[in-house]
Amino acid sequence: MFQTPRGTRDFLPKEMLKRNWVMDQIREVFKNYGYEPMSTPAFESWDMLKKKSGEDAVNQIYYFKDKSDRELGLRFEWTASLARVVATHRELPKPFKRYVIGPVWRYERPSDMRWREFWQADVDVVGVADPIADTEVLAVAVDSLKAIGFKGFKIKLNDRRLLEALVEISGLPKEKYLDAFRAVDKRGKIGDEGVLEELDKIGASRESSQRLLDLTSIRGAPSEVIGKAKELVKGVKKGLDACEALLSIVDYAEGYGITGDILVDLGLARGLDYYTGPVFEVYAEGFENEGSIAGGGRYDELIEIFGGEPTPVTGVSLGPGRLVALLERAGVFDSLNLAPRVYVVSASDSVRSKAIEVAQELRRAGVSTEMDLLSRGMRKQLDNANTKGVSKVVIVGERELAEGCVAVRDMSTSVQQKVKLEELLEHLG
Amino acid sequence: MFQTPRGTRDFLPKEMLKRNWVMDQIREVFKNYGYEPMSTPAFESWDMLKKKSGEDAVNQIYYFKDKSDRELGLRFEWTASLARVVATHRELPKPFKRYVIGPVWRYERPSDMRWREFWQADVDVVGVADPIADTEVLAVAVDSLKAIGFKGFKIKLNDRRLLEALVEISGLPKEKYLDAFRAVDKRGKIGDEGVLEELDKIGASRESSQRLLDLTSIRGAPSEVIGKAKELVKGVKKGLDACEALLSIVDYAEGYGITGDILVDLGLARGLDYYTGPVFEVYAEGFENEGSIAGGGRYDELIEIFGGEPTPVTGVSLGPGRLVALLERAGVFDSLNLAPRVYVVSASDSVRSKAIEVAQELRRAGVSTEMDLLSRGMRKQLDNANTKGVSKVVIVGERELAEGCVAVRDMSTSVQQKVKLEELLEHLG
Repeated sequence: MFQTPRGTRDFLPKEMLKRNWVMDQIREVFKNYGYEPMSTPAFESWDMLKKKSGEDAVNQIYYFKDKSDRELGLRFEWTASLARVVATHRELPKPFKRYVIGPVWRYERPSDMRWREFWQADVDVVGVADPIADTEVLAVAVDSLKAIGFKGFKIKLNDRRLLEALVEISGLPKEKYLDAFRAVDKRGKIGDEGVLEELDKIGASRESSQRLLDLTSIRGAPSEVIGKAKELVKGVKKGLDACEALLSIVDYAEGYGITGDILVDLGLARGLDYYTGPVFEVYAEGFENEGSIAGGGRYDELIEIFGGEPTPVTGVSLGPGRLVALLERAGVFDSLNLAPRVYVVSASDSVRSKAIEVAQELRRAGVSTEMDLLSRGMRKQLDNANTKGVSKVVIVGERELAEGCVAVRDMSTSVQQKVKLEELLEHLG
Repeated sequence: MFQTPRGTRDFLPKEMLKRNWVMDQIREVFKNYGYEPMSTPAFESWDMLKKKSGEDAVNQIYYFKDKSDRELGLRFEWTASLARVVATHRELPKPFKRYVIGPVWRYERPSDMRWREFWQADVDVVGVADPIADTEVLAVAVDSLKAIGFKGFKIKLNDRRLLEALVEISGLPKEKYLDAFRAVDKRGKIGDEGVLEELDKIGASRESSQRLLDLTSIRGAPSEVIGKAKELVKGVKKGLDACEALLSIVDYAEGYGITGDILVDLGLARGLDYYTGPVFEVYAEGFENEGSIAGGGRYDELIEIFGGEPTPVTGVSLGPGRLVALLERAGVFDSLNLAPRVYVVSASDSVRSKAIEVAQELRRAGVSTEMDLLSRGMRKQLDNANTKGVSKVVIVGERELAEGCVAVRDMSTSVQQKVKLEELLEHLG
């Protein structure tokens, strides 16, 4: 018997209905915000994939050669492909707001929550330097999460330029700031001692390292923390710019009606190297131990790296697979009926072709309708309808048909009533 | 500058909106017929992919090894994965009706209409031997095509068992019937002479070959052709079974309300080897020279090949990418507005945050809404709204706001009117 390749899995209908529901809700929010769909190939040239990525990422790419020895790789996220498209298609009007929902592949050690094939849902705004764009993608993320059943949120904000300024004023070697970010980013996993060790490795003095740890421990209400940060980075332009950006985001957030506590966390780095400005993560109430459930930030240099004009970009990413798992635990799907709405039962063989006609009429009117294909008896059809979880059963019987009627049974109340054929659609609402 | 790998392409929003529209319509029909979604990994084990496929197909598979030297390949169609799932998950209740819409990859010579990454939309019924299932998938295909704007249809029907019987009664070597099918299948491309040559190669006499050509030229109205076929295959059970199945399909087709001329074509083989019963192709009026736009058939042996219980399956497949190209030519998209519905313009900087609030209210009510993110002047915002092709523009201005109003402009009529803020949603319908 054949298995799925290690780290991948099949999604059978029960699971897939939930996944599709989640992705459909998210997509609706993306569209309502005016984001447009775009699609890029599942594999890209190896050179292109390497361009953006740190070594860790490159090691995770599924690499292969096609039959003409072209070096290719499966996409491991969506951002590089977006940057490639924007760099190549200079004619795309800006701002360019695009969404994408689809699978990416990473050769990582599989675990309960980590798969080698997983889905990412991204929105990005290309061509807007103002923090209004960062706020908008954040609003999109929060509204998407609300649409699928999450309630309260905590939003962590920081800015990479501020972090860079803190590295500088801590007295760490300036050119090693990315390594410093990466070390700070791992604090939750490796602890303070771990971070200090990592900083040792890049040649930081203990004093500087400790100072950086202290500074990046500062977090709290925006007004307070941004005020403090302004004092700290006095005279360092990028730090002050960052403070202004964070203030703007907090300000816009009100207009955008972003629900949730906003927290400025000077330790928030977000591992990936390409961020250049505001970064953010969304946490959900009730899932505090699960880490962030959405995250993103600004990356104003990436398009240039891919050969395009310097272009500001900011975006946010959600992981539908992980969200489904969390919602499952929260019982969100218990109250959702994702089954077909109607099951048409034929009471005897003689009315079967009439039953087909009834089913077809419903389907063509947009009512999802199931019926038996195995010539089963009425009892078994009703069992089947029950197993499928439909809300209504339409029973086509000879006697009722003679009066131009069918019987409609509400499966939740078990109430059955006679309905005229021409009123069936209206009756089913 | 980086290009997409040869034979693949990006779908920018303009194109992708159409593709998504087509796939959404198709998916809606699939769901209305009670088909359930399922998803399998983009790559499968090489052994599994080879299992089903003829040599041609194997040569077209993107093959690679993962970092642990596992031999893998990208899926080149959806059927093998379905068979693997059904063979492995015996607990799946039957009938199992699944749909899937997604990309597959084939290393073929790229051309105008042939890409190395392309989409397939499939429905399959697992567990129903009766031709009602074949008819249902055919109805699904036709209704899907109608939903996206195709009008009249010609449906070609045949049965692989009938074809097998014809090979037999023509006097061709029985065990070479698959090669014979493949030869007959190419008739349109290589002509009669070509088919005769191919049949020569498998050791058929000229007489037998000519007889097979004559028999497989028979096509026409079902009653007539099936009657003729019954005479021809007298005494050959599989041939007679096939005739019964075809009669059933034609009969059910009426109940299912399949619109279109049904034609039985004894020459229809459909290249792939795995079909075992009825096969069918759908052609659209106005696109007679484009070949079939949907096709499928029954394959009752495939699940067993993958190690499962003997299980009847029938299915149909549509190619969304190709359908988009045809609909484009037919002008179907000209009358579709796939842009956001509303653009909120802020008349001055002072009302910008109010404009954001208005946009947010609309978005949260499910109205797709765009607004300016570049602090552009009103003139430029209106231009932008126009370029985007929205139907309505909501202008937020100081004067109107003082009265609790906004101005709403209908972009098709250019009529502008004052609307109270609390009535805006209702006004926009």
